[in-house]
Amino acid sequence: MNAAFAKLPAPPYYAVIFSSQRTLAAEAEYAATAEHLFELVRGQPGFLGAESTRGADGFGITVAYFDSEENIARWRQHAEHAVARERGKSEWYSHVELRIAKVERAYTPPIRPKG
Amino acid sequence: MNAAFAKLPAPPYYAVIFSSQRTLAAEAEYAATAEHLFELVRGQPGFLGAESTRGADGFGITVAYFDSEENIARWRQHAEHAVARERGKSEWYSHVELRIAKVERAYTPPIRPKG
Repeated sequence: MNAAFAKLPAPPYYAVIFSSQRTLAAEAEYAATAEHLFELVRGQPGFLGAESTRGADGFGITVAYFDSEENIARWRQHAEHAVARERGKSEWYSHVELRIAKVERAYTPPIRPKG
Repeated sequence: MNAAFAKLPAPPYYAVIFSSQRTLAAEAEYAATAEHLFELVRGQPGFLGAESTRGADGFGITVAYFDSEENIARWRQHAEHAVARERGKSEWYSHVELRIAKVERAYTPPIRPKG
């Protein structure tokens, strides 16, 4: 297991599934903001963990996990998060989708490397 | 919007969130199997759409959407899917996480490009 995986408690908990297509704009600024927001969210009430990746085509998926919908709403209201969302809409993304889900079951399937 | 985004009906529906770390093994075989499974799942009962991406570090997230937990279970039982899972556990992945969630709300935030 590596650091890309979130270590989460047993369900139930909530997932914010954020899919996004990056524009080619402002890579350095985008990367710095994303890193800063990740530091911020780690200190938010009810934040459980997150996983994120983006392919060479600029399509990315981030899943952030929280203990409750109330704490998802609280993070949404965070001032720096709100500013970053506006920048995202005007410059960093060409399309985004956001889905809020309740995680009901979770498994870590066993890996069995061949001899 | 590009083809990487799933076009989904209004919630509620179910999400299978699959996070995986690829090994360096068998890239051509892995890619061919992944493409074949994607073709298969598109024909499964209750399949609504999927989004998937993987970064240069080999960490990937795939989210597949279904109309019900019953149809998620049916896809899990598909013979070719089961064979591919076993290959994944023995060769393609070094770690995986699987989470089943009920999507309760979904948004397409408006993108507002600057002049």
